[in-house]
Amino acid sequence: MFFKVKTCEEVLGLLETFEPVGEERVPLVQAFDHVLSRDMVSPVDLPGFARSSMDGYAIMAKDSFGATESLPALLEVVGEVKMGEIPGVKVSPGRAIRIATGGMLPDGADGVVMVEYCHTLDENTIEVSRAISPQENVIAPDDDYRKGSVVLSKGIRLRPQDLGALAGLGILEVPVYKRPKVAIISTGDEVIPAEQNPGPGQVRDINSYTLGAFCQEMGAEPVILGLCGDNFDQLRSLVEKGLGAADTVWLSGGSSVGTRDLTIRVFESFEHMEVLVHGISISPGKPTIIARLNSCAVIGLPGHTASAMVVAEIFLKPFLSRLSGQRVSARKIEPEVWARLSRNIESAAGRDDYVRVKLYEREGDVVAEPIFGKSGLISTLVEADGLVRVDRNTEGLYEGDKVKVILFRHS
Amino acid sequence: MFFKVKTCEEVLGLLETFEPVGEERVPLVQAFDHVLSRDMVSPVDLPGFARSSMDGYAIMAKDSFGATESLPALLEVVGEVKMGEIPGVKVSPGRAIRIATGGMLPDGADGVVMVEYCHTLDENTIEVSRAISPQENVIAPDDDYRKGSVVLSKGIRLRPQDLGALAGLGILEVPVYKRPKVAIISTGDEVIPAEQNPGPGQVRDINSYTLGAFCQEMGAEPVILGLCGDNFDQLRSLVEKGLGAADTVWLSGGSSVGTRDLTIRVFESFEHMEVLVHGISISPGKPTIIARLNSCAVIGLPGHTASAMVVAEIFLKPFLSRLSGQRVSARKIEPEVWARLSRNIESAAGRDDYVRVKLYEREGDVVAEPIFGKSGLISTLVEADGLVRVDRNTEGLYEGDKVKVILFRHS
Repeated sequence: MFFKVKTCEEVLGLLETFEPVGEERVPLVQAFDHVLSRDMVSPVDLPGFARSSMDGYAIMAKDSFGATESLPALLEVVGEVKMGEIPGVKVSPGRAIRIATGGMLPDGADGVVMVEYCHTLDENTIEVSRAISPQENVIAPDDDYRKGSVVLSKGIRLRPQDLGALAGLGILEVPVYKRPKVAIISTGDEVIPAEQNPGPGQVRDINSYTLGAFCQEMGAEPVILGLCGDNFDQLRSLVEKGLGAADTVWLSGGSSVGTRDLTIRVFESFEHMEVLVHGISISPGKPTIIARLNSCAVIGLPGHTASAMVVAEIFLKPFLSRLSGQRVSARKIEPEVWARLSRNIESAAGRDDYVRVKLYEREGDVVAEPIFGKSGLISTLVEADGLVRVDRNTEGLYEGDKVKVILFRHS
Repeated sequence: MFFKVKTCEEVLGLLETFEPVGEERVPLVQAFDHVLSRDMVSPVDLPGFARSSMDGYAIMAKDSFGATESLPALLEVVGEVKMGEIPGVKVSPGRAIRIATGGMLPDGADGVVMVEYCHTLDENTIEVSRAISPQENVIAPDDDYRKGSVVLSKGIRLRPQDLGALAGLGILEVPVYKRPKVAIISTGDEVIPAEQNPGPGQVRDINSYTLGAFCQEMGAEPVILGLCGDNFDQLRSLVEKGLGAADTVWLSGGSSVGTRDLTIRVFESFEHMEVLVHGISISPGKPTIIARLNSCAVIGLPGHTASAMVVAEIFLKPFLSRLSGQRVSARKIEPEVWARLSRNIESAAGRDDYVRVKLYEREGDVVAEPIFGKSGLISTLVEADGLVRVDRNTEGLYEGDKVKVILFRHS
């Protein structure tokens, strides 16, 4: 069967055809970093009553009109607002009530004059040396949220302040998208569990750890299924297990042609599994395979860790965002790092190259230094701070070129 | 007692005098996003044996010297390397052994010629149409890591690839700094638990949720101690509880002068507690109080959510990084967002203003629109994508000015 290698854009487009994995309700205290699955509408006015935003005196604003330092207004103090309580007294013309920040505005008052502009003459009398306008230093009952207004839109990842708004409104259970579950399988006869001592010719499993942590970073839940030799029956049964246990199944391994063929044969042995992608015009990461069985993407990643991680960064990040229900909002502004290349990068036309780079500062400039190690080496990824894309329509980049860096989250 | 309001730089300097909270060992599978507390040194050479990085034939490189498409070298195929096993045969002059990517290089071979340059004549003979250099397509035994070399430096926050390197080296328990525990107390007679219905004059607790999620975002562990009225004994006993249960204690509340005085009185009632900061030249957030008892910072934040969150963003982020043991590496390059202001921002000289802004794109430009709502409103923070700093040495910023935006992590 002949497969045409797909471009990055085609692959990203195909991955967008998968749907979020479903909803659940979580307690507010656990909702941080989850993706909201419904628009949240305010059930009440917030704060629900008029509050003072300053320490001072609740008055009728007109009693202060014209007041200046040389001609202050004299007001009678008739009480004090207790925090958290309904004021026991009303403000009437010529009268003031002491109030602290956050206190409930008493009936009759329509403004608060700051304590800084009040001079105490005796226990019951103040001089006000500045005029206030009506509603000055007052938070209206619906200033924060009006009943029925949309507070948060579905598809956002909940931030601390978003939880704060929900708490303020008394919404203690939050509808969110489920965190996608990702079944992870490492394949290869030469791969042994990391806790074992490799004999000659054997290597420890790295990809279960890198891909597992990558899922955690993306708010997804890794389901580590372990290792699998280059064996049709064993691989098929692990993929089947993954299909039952997770929302997407990721295999890594098979940088050799033989293993890749095995992966394809396993994929094609499932009824209704459709191979969508067999090779991507990207380097590293070309031998990536993507198949679909119903709503589940089954993905064969290259065995080389660096290749697998580049594919994860470029394709699986947006894919997991998609499964998580996160909306790419039109308003979303991403922070960027731009750097100057420390040397030329050659690149074959017809494929997008993602070159690992190390960043440092030199004379106030950010410099990106390409790391040209083999993609089988984990050290090249550990050394790297991010990736630089060399577009398939160029033949390379030059030393001194200003390039955008796709940053690995932590460095 | 007279306190001079401190500058932002002074406060950041004081917070740097606190030490990381201690070490622990965690299993590798749980180590993602933890901060490494020791340099990690490679106990072995990795991969530990010479491996092929391509599918092809292991040969003696000199057997291919001079080979071209028109004048290929003829080699006898004497076997195949099985993945994960020691090759059973040796390469001798004029001979080749089939090898897949990741296979162990057989004795005698010093290079691998890619399968693409080999033409099978019969079962035991290939034509090689391209010369290779010695070590071509070979990963040397210590190409990834040499025994004794530093793999990861203490103070880094562990990324997926860092875990991968540790897995590859068989390091399955990782020395990390403990996640700092943060005791959180919300104060104010008007504040009720978020699960209750507020009567007139009452508001639900918001800050426990915003500050709690902020700690989670920073990899710290919130210890929510709940609410406290404006009452000396109650507050003192909660602070005492926090000192016993956490590495730092954060109170929020007390935007009124009365509550602030109460907080200070409580702090000063602890023997050996030293008040380091009583007011910061920042807006919002001025009435922040910072005290120290031994190694523990006790911090009184403003009650207004937006003010508390600005203080958290500017001061408590680096403070928690510090407690977490994360090193501010000289090499660390932060992604940035720059935007054009949509309107003028006035600012009083002598204090640093942090203005909430909303970001959007207009004609390819990123625009920052200031949000001027009262800092008592949570909605202003929900609407905001980040903060713009107006330095205390300027009197404001102008419409069209290009400004750096301190981005809230998710938007």
